[in-house]
Amino acid sequence: MSNDPLVIFTPSGKRGNFAVGTPILTAARQLGVDLDSVCGGRGICSKCQITPSYGEFSKHGVTVHEDALSPWNSVEERYDTIRGLPKGRRLGCQATVQNDIVVDVPPESQVHKQVVRKRAEARDITMNPTTRLYYVEVQEPDMHEPSGDLERLIQSLRKDWDLPELEADLGVLKSLQPALRKGGWKVTCAVHLGDDTFSPRIMQVWPGYYEGTIYGLAVDLGSTTIAAHLCDLQTGDVVASSGVMNPQIRFGEDLMSRVSYGMMNPNGADEMTTAVREGMNALFVQIASEAEIDRNLIVDAVFVCNPVMHHLFLGIDPFELGQAPFALATSESLSLRAIELDLNLHPSARVYLLPCIAGHVGADAAAVALSEAPDKSEDLVLIVDVGTNAEILLGNKEKVLACSSPTGPAFEGAQISSGQRAAPGAIERVEIDPITKLPRFKVIGCDLWNTEDGFAKETARTGVTGICGSGIIEIVAEMRMAGIVDAPGLIGSAEQTGSPNCFPEGRTNSYLVYDGTADGGPKITVTNVDIRQIQMAKAALYSGARLLMDKFEVDSVDRVVLAGAFGAHISPKHAMVLGMIPDAPLDRVTSAGNAAGTGARIALLNRDARTEIEATVHDIHKIETALEPRFQEHFVNASAIPNAVEPFPILKSIVTLPDVNHNTGGGGGGEGRRRRRKPSAE
Amino acid sequence: MSNDPLVIFTPSGKRGNFAVGTPILTAARQLGVDLDSVCGGRGICSKCQITPSYGEFSKHGVTVHEDALSPWNSVEERYDTIRGLPKGRRLGCQATVQNDIVVDVPPESQVHKQVVRKRAEARDITMNPTTRLYYVEVQEPDMHEPSGDLERLIQSLRKDWDLPELEADLGVLKSLQPALRKGGWKVTCAVHLGDDTFSPRIMQVWPGYYEGTIYGLAVDLGSTTIAAHLCDLQTGDVVASSGVMNPQIRFGEDLMSRVSYGMMNPNGADEMTTAVREGMNALFVQIASEAEIDRNLIVDAVFVCNPVMHHLFLGIDPFELGQAPFALATSESLSLRAIELDLNLHPSARVYLLPCIAGHVGADAAAVALSEAPDKSEDLVLIVDVGTNAEILLGNKEKVLACSSPTGPAFEGAQISSGQRAAPGAIERVEIDPITKLPRFKVIGCDLWNTEDGFAKETARTGVTGICGSGIIEIVAEMRMAGIVDAPGLIGSAEQTGSPNCFPEGRTNSYLVYDGTADGGPKITVTNVDIRQIQMAKAALYSGARLLMDKFEVDSVDRVVLAGAFGAHISPKHAMVLGMIPDAPLDRVTSAGNAAGTGARIALLNRDARTEIEATVHDIHKIETALEPRFQEHFVNASAIPNAVEPFPILKSIVTLPDVNHNTGGGGGGEGRRRRRKPSAE
Repeated sequence: MSNDPLVIFTPSGKRGNFAVGTPILTAARQLGVDLDSVCGGRGICSKCQITPSYGEFSKHGVTVHEDALSPWNSVEERYDTIRGLPKGRRLGCQATVQNDIVVDVPPESQVHKQVVRKRAEARDITMNPTTRLYYVEVQEPDMHEPSGDLERLIQSLRKDWDLPELEADLGVLKSLQPALRKGGWKVTCAVHLGDDTFSPRIMQVWPGYYEGTIYGLAVDLGSTTIAAHLCDLQTGDVVASSGVMNPQIRFGEDLMSRVSYGMMNPNGADEMTTAVREGMNALFVQIASEAEIDRNLIVDAVFVCNPVMHHLFLGIDPFELGQAPFALATSESLSLRAIELDLNLHPSARVYLLPCIAGHVGADAAAVALSEAPDKSEDLVLIVDVGTNAEILLGNKEKVLACSSPTGPAFEGAQISSGQRAAPGAIERVEIDPITKLPRFKVIGCDLWNTEDGFAKETARTGVTGICGSGIIEIVAEMRMAGIVDAPGLIGSAEQTGSPNCFPEGRTNSYLVYDGTADGGPKITVTNVDIRQIQMAKAALYSGARLLMDKFEVDSVDRVVLAGAFGAHISPKHAMVLGMIPDAPLDRVTSAGNAAGTGARIALLNRDARTEIEATVHDIHKIETALEPRFQEHFVNASAIPNAVEPFPILKSIVTLPDVNHNTGGGGGGEGRRRRRKPSAE
Repeated sequence: MSNDPLVIFTPSGKRGNFAVGTPILTAARQLGVDLDSVCGGRGICSKCQITPSYGEFSKHGVTVHEDALSPWNSVEERYDTIRGLPKGRRLGCQATVQNDIVVDVPPESQVHKQVVRKRAEARDITMNPTTRLYYVEVQEPDMHEPSGDLERLIQSLRKDWDLPELEADLGVLKSLQPALRKGGWKVTCAVHLGDDTFSPRIMQVWPGYYEGTIYGLAVDLGSTTIAAHLCDLQTGDVVASSGVMNPQIRFGEDLMSRVSYGMMNPNGADEMTTAVREGMNALFVQIASEAEIDRNLIVDAVFVCNPVMHHLFLGIDPFELGQAPFALATSESLSLRAIELDLNLHPSARVYLLPCIAGHVGADAAAVALSEAPDKSEDLVLIVDVGTNAEILLGNKEKVLACSSPTGPAFEGAQISSGQRAAPGAIERVEIDPITKLPRFKVIGCDLWNTEDGFAKETARTGVTGICGSGIIEIVAEMRMAGIVDAPGLIGSAEQTGSPNCFPEGRTNSYLVYDGTADGGPKITVTNVDIRQIQMAKAALYSGARLLMDKFEVDSVDRVVLAGAFGAHISPKHAMVLGMIPDAPLDRVTSAGNAAGTGARIALLNRDARTEIEATVHDIHKIETALEPRFQEHFVNASAIPNAVEPFPILKSIVTLPDVNHNTGGGGGGEGRRRRRKPSAE
């Protein structure tokens, strides 16, 4: 047993004996305790704040006296005066061991601190960014031992911070000599710690101790919108979030029309590449301005996107993705310099693209897998990222399957007669009274039902303009529950349904949701064609999920996660009535919000997560729906509302589904419900 | 003992038994015999040509019969018809083992073939370039096992060629899918094999078998001129050599004026960087046009230059190199993308800069060390690269010392009254008749002496315009040998010297070399100020060499190598009379030509040479002349002609040096010869 004082760190529990006079930071380093420092123990950065605990610690078998640490010193005094040190805190590099001591490392003093995610079921993100700041003192040049300023800087970084042999970007070489001299041979360096592509290198040098921070971007490059989170790479905080429309929309609303545009126009793919990169740069200007930071401080960016966007962003013609066998130019993750993609960030900024899973299942799906971690789930989870293409993951810690299903744009309000994008004025919530069969609704931007007082006033500016994706799902499900639509998907007449809002239109019936024509507004209806569109979309989605369940040899899943911005607004009950997703307890159907964007943020903040998702993607088993005969079979059966493939006892326990059939002539759109494993008409 | 036939390869002597039917190429690979192939044995590239030998080989203990190899086949027949196969040759991939056989691998069929250098004493260059071509057949995409086209290409390269895990440049990703399909899933790849900075990567993909080659540039970036060799990276041949003036000359003739320009002008350094890069691109256009090749086929470039040019080329202000302690921004070698330096080569071309030895001893000196390899020399070699700054290396396999000495531009014809750059019309050879004391000379561009018939006619176009660097050395040495100049450096009067060409000018005398004024030409003279300039320059050079000899604790060297374009034109005898170099047997004073350029070529053609010179430079001991008191001492004593520091018995055995002293007043420019180790006036 050593006679030296015992130092115990909490919460890690790591302990060791240290000579009197040892700084707490030194003790922490020797024990491998995760205590941050940028200045290397020079009392400048204050990142190594610790909280000493005093008193009796029977658990640890020590008693800590008031004299356990060296007294508050002038460095701490100065720091406290200028910037303020929270009560009870000491600087780990200044306070030295005098006697047995218990030291708590608060979360914000940990290098690998946890970034807490909003959702309860989500794992926290451990900070471990690719680029970090290091403060060093550099040896001055000596004519007798000539060596470059860079080589002496690298030597100091290696010695003080145990960094590998570094290189420097050209921009650093240009600014290095003035910075070293201005800082009196003390500088702060931003160091990219390297990956499979890039050797570890110095990206920027500031004279003296750099008080600021560095940033990274997590970008979700969607077909319609480009959304980004700007993160502080030291704290992990999201300091700004912003989005712009994808300027490629002018070349085609959906992906296949963009692929076609590239085929039809000699420089079509290049035009689209230029457009998306310009849009990206516009977004960067916007987000930096919102956060009031210099864009040159953004040193890292992670991108997730579907395969077509992935190729177009990289400057690759997505031609091959438009036809079987849907060959990706490259499926692995990519590490690039931002400048190679014409992105205006820090001149040495690095860019990381997550791997693609298959020709139809992109880096966005990989990001969802990173965020939702089906490969770590004890129970069987179905993850659906709803968009123009639905990406579907099914799995648990045993295995994970993935496929993509061509839902089309109906869920986004497109190809629906009164459909529109989610924007103020769009109907997003609908209820149909089971007695009167009349609808009431809410629009985006107003918390009132349209039947409540003040609705007209509050929506005066936006009006009621159409139905957005989540609205269309609710309305169709409500129509089904109210008996206005039957299981095969036919809207009944006013007589059949008892609803005065049903009216004949062509050879079928439509349902009036809102008539604003008196005030010059639109007449918002649901036509039978709309119902068909939604049936097609939901059948595609469901069939994909069902196909994965077949492959997994299961008839039910433990939980369902709806991902995507749209997924965040879907009502689980309505989704299930519609038959979008398999029967599951409603409280086990959750929304993950923009899980792809969250996956990008994880990859941005934790370099190990990049390696992890690269490995995970290799293990994900891809199912190509086009090659599976059962997909077509499921698709046909899944067009019923709800689908006719499986029983739905859980749903039945919650809602009443009237057993109506509006197709008096028989045949037509389907035959009501039919169980797949035990066929029997109800 | 195996019963399989024995295969013996010459010249390697490697041997082994192989089953009947084994292709010779396969046997070579298994034995590690250096037999080239780009197509991987598919009978396309013909790089694996071998020559079977028949008859009795008592040395090897085998008799080779005519049926030792499989018969000439249709692939060979086709190749021979289309392109022609030299007599006696077979394709190693087609000819299979049938019986005991002796197979010769001709030099051109070796991967690591030797590139023969012109000089007898120089080592040959072993081909081992950083970028090579590989032909592969790629598996077609399969929807059941989705993977990117790139990943399947990489898999094939790894399997067929044992290449490491590769990445691809963005440009490759863009062209990959069309190339694979156009080539029917067969492509040829240019692969950069990687270095400390870059991971191994595919730089270009051609559909099918690519019949062409790829190129590299070895560039000597001098203060005055930029010279480049364009090399075939498969054969090592120099296919074109070209040079342009360094456009930076407009910012200052010598390096220090350029450093000053950078200090005096806010964007001065950037202007000079832009200028040199523009000059470089102009050179690339010129050399590619001379060789009639596409500049986009130049995939690699190696640069050597002095430290100031090094920094300016990289975009670093050379300010610190203008003042003690002459700190380099970086001294290590650099591996960059050509695009980072705004160079218009292959879009993915890589660039390598050799390391600098010290603030005054640059990558050019490192290249000289690579070319002349003093660190591998058995005898003690002094290598002098003469330019505005002289770089001096002294060493043998035990150790190597290096220094730089500020000779100034006099050796390049600058700051000499009738001096000029080496160009047609410049006097480059001079003889002074020992009896008449009258000169005769030759000018660049004409092989006749000016006293010979036809000289006037042959030089009618250029005229006689001035004296170039090598001419000024010869003329001063000749003046010394003719007694027109004394040891301290004074030109005598016509009476003192007996030469009618001596005439008084100011307080001293001048010597008339040529009077063209009658025809409107110049009057070319050597003034006593010119003599002083040359004395200063040669004293600086000699003192540097002498300082290294002191450090090495020797009084003489075994051999002297004069490097640099100028060095190629210096007459060793005259250089020794002048006292530029230490006393040495004239046949041991050789010219290495542009050794820096050759060093660049070695680093271009052999990647191991890069690692080698990086290690060598670390081991070279740098002497900073400014810090050595003895440098000044040597300098003062070395101004005599020849210098007064050492005895020169070898020189004395060749030439007669009259013991004159034109300074009748005594004192002044020196005291004649004085031996350093055994002081005694002669």
